[in-house]
Amino acid sequence: MVRTRLYRDGKVEREDLALEEIKGLLAEEGATVWIDYESPSDEDLSAMETILGLHRLAVEDALHDHQRPKLDRYRTHLFLAAYEATLEPGDGGLAVNEVKAFITRRALVTVHGPGFSADRLTERWDRETDVADHGVAFLLWGLIDLLVDGHFDVVQDLDERIEDLEDALFDDHSSDHDLQRRSFELRKALVRLRRVVLPMREVLNTVLRRDLDIADPAMQPFFQDVYDHVLRASDWTESLRDMVSSILETHVSIQGNRMNLVMKKLTSWAAIIAVPTAVTGFFGQNVPFLGFQSTLGLVLSLSLIVGGGVGLYVLFRRKEWI
Amino acid sequence: MVRTRLYRDGKVEREDLALEEIKGLLAEEGATVWIDYESPSDEDLSAMETILGLHRLAVEDALHDHQRPKLDRYRTHLFLAAYEATLEPGDGGLAVNEVKAFITRRALVTVHGPGFSADRLTERWDRETDVADHGVAFLLWGLIDLLVDGHFDVVQDLDERIEDLEDALFDDHSSDHDLQRRSFELRKALVRLRRVVLPMREVLNTVLRRDLDIADPAMQPFFQDVYDHVLRASDWTESLRDMVSSILETHVSIQGNRMNLVMKKLTSWAAIIAVPTAVTGFFGQNVPFLGFQSTLGLVLSLSLIVGGGVGLYVLFRRKEWI
Amino acid sequence: MVRTRLYRDGKVEREDLALEEIKGLLAEEGATVWIDYESPSDEDLSAMETILGLHRLAVEDALHDHQRPKLDRYRTHLFLAAYEATLEPGDGGLAVNEVKAFITRRALVTVHGPGFSADRLTERWDRETDVADHGVAFLLWGLIDLLVDGHFDVVQDLDERIEDLEDALFDDHSSDHDLQRRSFELRKALVRLRRVVLPMREVLNTVLRRDLDIADPAMQPFFQDVYDHVLRASDWTESLRDMVSSILETHVSIQGNRMNLVMKKLTSWAAIIAVPTAVTGFFGQNVPFLGFQSTLGLVLSLSLIVGGGVGLYVLFRRKEWI
Amino acid sequence: MVRTRLYRDGKVEREDLALEEIKGLLAEEGATVWIDYESPSDEDLSAMETILGLHRLAVEDALHDHQRPKLDRYRTHLFLAAYEATLEPGDGGLAVNEVKAFITRRALVTVHGPGFSADRLTERWDRETDVADHGVAFLLWGLIDLLVDGHFDVVQDLDERIEDLEDALFDDHSSDHDLQRRSFELRKALVRLRRVVLPMREVLNTVLRRDLDIADPAMQPFFQDVYDHVLRASDWTESLRDMVSSILETHVSIQGNRMNLVMKKLTSWAAIIAVPTAVTGFFGQNVPFLGFQSTLGLVLSLSLIVGGGVGLYVLFRRKEWI
Amino acid sequence: MVRTRLYRDGKVEREDLALEEIKGLLAEEGATVWIDYESPSDEDLSAMETILGLHRLAVEDALHDHQRPKLDRYRTHLFLAAYEATLEPGDGGLAVNEVKAFITRRALVTVHGPGFSADRLTERWDRETDVADHGVAFLLWGLIDLLVDGHFDVVQDLDERIEDLEDALFDDHSSDHDLQRRSFELRKALVRLRRVVLPMREVLNTVLRRDLDIADPAMQPFFQDVYDHVLRASDWTESLRDMVSSILETHVSIQGNRMNLVMKKLTSWAAIIAVPTAVTGFFGQNVPFLGFQSTLGLVLSLSLIVGGGVGLYVLFRRKEWI
Repeated sequence: MVRTRLYRDGKVEREDLALEEIKGLLAEEGATVWIDYESPSDEDLSAMETILGLHRLAVEDALHDHQRPKLDRYRTHLFLAAYEATLEPGDGGLAVNEVKAFITRRALVTVHGPGFSADRLTERWDRETDVADHGVAFLLWGLIDLLVDGHFDVVQDLDERIEDLEDALFDDHSSDHDLQRRSFELRKALVRLRRVVLPMREVLNTVLRRDLDIADPAMQPFFQDVYDHVLRASDWTESLRDMVSSILETHVSIQGNRMNLVMKKLTSWAAIIAVPTAVTGFFGQNVPFLGFQSTLGLVLSLSLIVGGGVGLYVLFRRKEWI
Repeated sequence: MVRTRLYRDGKVEREDLALEEIKGLLAEEGATVWIDYESPSDEDLSAMETILGLHRLAVEDALHDHQRPKLDRYRTHLFLAAYEATLEPGDGGLAVNEVKAFITRRALVTVHGPGFSADRLTERWDRETDVADHGVAFLLWGLIDLLVDGHFDVVQDLDERIEDLEDALFDDHSSDHDLQRRSFELRKALVRLRRVVLPMREVLNTVLRRDLDIADPAMQPFFQDVYDHVLRASDWTESLRDMVSSILETHVSIQGNRMNLVMKKLTSWAAIIAVPTAVTGFFGQNVPFLGFQSTLGLVLSLSLIVGGGVGLYVLFRRKEWI
Repeated sequence: MVRTRLYRDGKVEREDLALEEIKGLLAEEGATVWIDYESPSDEDLSAMETILGLHRLAVEDALHDHQRPKLDRYRTHLFLAAYEATLEPGDGGLAVNEVKAFITRRALVTVHGPGFSADRLTERWDRETDVADHGVAFLLWGLIDLLVDGHFDVVQDLDERIEDLEDALFDDHSSDHDLQRRSFELRKALVRLRRVVLPMREVLNTVLRRDLDIADPAMQPFFQDVYDHVLRASDWTESLRDMVSSILETHVSIQGNRMNLVMKKLTSWAAIIAVPTAVTGFFGQNVPFLGFQSTLGLVLSLSLIVGGGVGLYVLFRRKEWI
Repeated sequence: MVRTRLYRDGKVEREDLALEEIKGLLAEEGATVWIDYESPSDEDLSAMETILGLHRLAVEDALHDHQRPKLDRYRTHLFLAAYEATLEPGDGGLAVNEVKAFITRRALVTVHGPGFSADRLTERWDRETDVADHGVAFLLWGLIDLLVDGHFDVVQDLDERIEDLEDALFDDHSSDHDLQRRSFELRKALVRLRRVVLPMREVLNTVLRRDLDIADPAMQPFFQDVYDHVLRASDWTESLRDMVSSILETHVSIQGNRMNLVMKKLTSWAAIIAVPTAVTGFFGQNVPFLGFQSTLGLVLSLSLIVGGGVGLYVLFRRKEWI
Repeated sequence: MVRTRLYRDGKVEREDLALEEIKGLLAEEGATVWIDYESPSDEDLSAMETILGLHRLAVEDALHDHQRPKLDRYRTHLFLAAYEATLEPGDGGLAVNEVKAFITRRALVTVHGPGFSADRLTERWDRETDVADHGVAFLLWGLIDLLVDGHFDVVQDLDERIEDLEDALFDDHSSDHDLQRRSFELRKALVRLRRVVLPMREVLNTVLRRDLDIADPAMQPFFQDVYDHVLRASDWTESLRDMVSSILETHVSIQGNRMNLVMKKLTSWAAIIAVPTAVTGFFGQNVPFLGFQSTLGLVLSLSLIVGGGVGLYVLFRRKEWI
């Protein structure tokens, strides 16, 4: 599926251009073209390769998945690989959608799978009209800003999940199994998020470098702003890893605690139960003990059972073992 | 709520300026203006944006919360985001108040919520009269110094709490549950504090860079002094993280210890209790054992019970199991 | 075993050259020679040393195993040491094959053991015909690309194994012993892989440095592409280490969990069993208790046993201890 | 308490100077003055501030405790903050004494509490006569060398304590509680020591920087020597942290071990005790079993008890459970 | 004990020189002198200090033990401190021998204790005749190469020990106590080795720096080769630390595993044993139960005991608890 847009003087002049006319448009001063491919075929990209003079390696990277987030410099264009991140609802894991882009002087070509919606990108652009006349730099900023904002939302959601987990940690009625599964899922999501977020620092660093000539002085603060977002997302991710570790360690300690409590209880009840066993054992002997086959024996037996049991119960109660 | 101050020659000339006259004042050589907004509306800041020529992105950052501590450079002004940190009383967690500031050549505009008290800031400024004639640099220094001093107080309080925790760690009468909760809370506070304190190093670094032209030679040592504070606070925070980890690990080890002790006790008492069970079982048999239905049996039974029980008790006592 | 190839103008002109003619060929402009030694003798390499003017230390490194992945610069040539990595099938460990290479202006000499197949290398070269006229740079790129692709495949396989391990982690029917062994093997493979992969970053960095004059502008993007691969493999390896740690820690926590469950069950059943013991002990006494030697006693005894047992069972069931 | 010394040409010319004459002496070429304040009042330091032209912030730092070890540069002088470290005897913790110093071209002013003895400093200076003619650089070197030597002694003592702890770790007769307390104390001392030692690297780095002009070529090797000491102390501290962690982890593992042994013993004895219980239970039944109320029963009972008990004992002994 | 050698034109011209003639020899172009002191007295080194013009601090460092591995630069000479490392046989720890050296333009003076054998050093030199005419650089290279090779051997031995430990880890018949002691010893050896190996990177870096003028172009690859060795040894040491940690953690997890198994067994047997206890308790009551004092009772009792016991055994067997 292909979508296109022609910008001139910060306005969307036309949409749905024919591929044939793009070459002509790219030669015109002041025209900026956006081309979006959803799940393009090899042929689609070959056509682009010819029209825009893209490097074969960049085109290959665009076709193959699982790229590292990066901004590669080729002689006549740049190639961006980045990820949109979302959290699956419930306690679901992290889902990522790969987005790639070719950046030439007058065109932005975005390539992605069906998971990423180009509508959200155009919405982002249409919301920001002040700097829309900055051509490709503006389009690129909109794209990266959208992705980084998404990362940030994920970090915030994970933070809330961790807060919930903290509450569950000290709640005696929460299930250990559930706690373990959730903290493991969180840790996994954080490990994956990190791999998506951290390299963005380098991407933004490259964009901000003056010699690359993307971010003109007026766009510079906008990219700087995104860069600040990336740094916050990175810092926060690291903090959250720390928190999940703390939760896991504290949980192990709490388990040890419960074990001790259970052991104390077990010991106490075992001792209390031992009283009637010992007493009735004694009075069950075939030897003429005091009260043998007489009511005195019954009284003695009962008193010892009740007295011993209650005595021990009180003792353990005081020690807070029961 | 708006508060203002006009400084001239290191003295507070007037307070409560009308917003209309500020524009004129900013044009006068030697005048420095402070404007403080508590929970400003969008309109308040738009007005400022026009009067001071602020960058739209900076104004947006001022309106949105959860900024990373930073000092952003725009063409005509700087934008500071930082946090005041306080510990909630009791064993409470870390509370933070976001403070933002626009720094132009002749004006400092501070923006914050109701949690941060501007009175403490004016007190800080009024206490330091020697360098009050350094205009905006002086005002900025007073602000950062106040915040960093606050971070430092928090670190010191956390240090004391950790000392208390250490005492509880080796105190047999302290509750495990309480220890776990407190150490978890401490760890959480440290993780959060770190996110507030560490980026301040970069902020101060930016201020101290000569090309930025904020800190003139006379103010340089003052900012350097704050920078030293930030470094101490950072180092100390890291040490405290280390200590809390040590406490948690030692606690797990102590729990293992207690478990072993409980197990030994349990084993010992189980063995002692087994004596009367075995003996009375024997003398309860319907077979003609030695002393069957005779006083000899009773004597034998009692001797074995008492002798065996006491013997085992002494044995375990010597092994220090009981 | 020796294999050779002569490239001219990006085409394979001949294979199976005699060693004697190589010297002559190396003097011809436009000729590029590849020589491959499988398990060469000392004499083989001495011959090479003379023909190509190799440094004695490089030749020694080529003969001795367990080199660190590196690219050494000698005055007239380079020396590369790197590893092919493969995972043994099943849950096997990491197997590595050392590959060394001398790189002169017009020749690439590869040296390896029987584990590494030179056929895969020629296949790699033959698949990429566009830049085959870049002489030694092309050959070197093909070699490094093959090795790094292999590293990447291993990382991907390990990722899948870890996914399997995660599933086993929360599966109640999986064997602890098996889980421990597999996670240990994974950790070991990751430690080893790291030692193979991480130094490749430095190797590629050296290749990409302009002063070394290997990668001409047209080859630069190709080496850059491999470098990106190396970075992804490194990042991914680190993430996997993190995941294996999480699995191990979570497993310890799950064990603690199970222990608590077993303890609770144990305690519950012990209590239930104590009921008939206590009751029949009581009714086995040789004292005239209520129902002594009468049917009333039997009824009482049975009621107490059944009632007490069922009562406790219901109680523990409600507490979810059983 | 004030102490003073006047050096000229590498010799101590006079001691106990009056504060009034110091100003004159500082103007003389070739004179170097040392002034030592133990617990000075605010007035003492104000006097110094005037005479030596010290910066107000440096003087404030000298009055306030808990400075980070640092070497601050002011326009006309330097300010040093550092710590003397000592270990309290027995298994005591780390004690630190703060020492501060102002370094001008011709004077060294040291400020400290009663814990630090100035005598040890003069001893240090008097022992080293070769470079005593290097003025303030010599005095400063003596001071830093003394402090760093102290750090080193502490590290060495801690190393010995850790060796003792290692011995206790595998000694079955050592107390767990004691081990835990000692390893915790060691860890705490190391965390604190680290905070004192690590910043000294930066201090020495600053001293050694040529632009600061303290260490003339002849003094350079002496400061370099101290720097080597600092590096050793830092490295060693890190190693010790590592060792203490190893001890703690190994201890947890040993506890697990003991637990397993205790559990095996418990299980074994429980099984052995179950034999007479089961046998005498059987022979205590009111049913006509083989040997009911006859000597045969007694013989059977005794044989089963002894045979079963001994048999199980031998079995467990072989499995090394008992 | 003193040993000497005079090199001229890459040949050993004489050995056992008199100290008196050394001064003369050092003035001759083309002569290189090696002087080796085993456990020298203060006087020995004072003599050297005078003859070679050594710096007093370097001589002091040579006399005092426990130097950090380093290469110090003095005006007229260098001072090297490094360690020979060996593993004590069996499961012994790491033994280190300190070796120090003064390096002047025409002389290498080595200083060491009785543990280091100078014979191995001369062997090393005599094996490498190609570059023996490079004077002091050659001698220095031989020394460092010998030490680093030793480090490498230790790393390889430790690697093998760790392999053995891994085998023991999953071997059910290995002793926990032994495993713990061995892994602790390994960890300790690695911590110590690290302190010896890591600083060698800096030493080699200093040697390779061009401005120091030790390694002339022909020697450069030789020192580079040693540097590669140092890097491999460092990397490997880090990997081994990682492996030992994995072993320890896996061991704790295996212990938890065993504990669970023991607990399950314990529970199962306790339940089986409870059957005869309950049954015989019932049939031992003094109430007219079914089969009271008749053969029917015996049959019932025996059937219940055997049936219940076998039933539970089969049940637990299926659950794999026994």
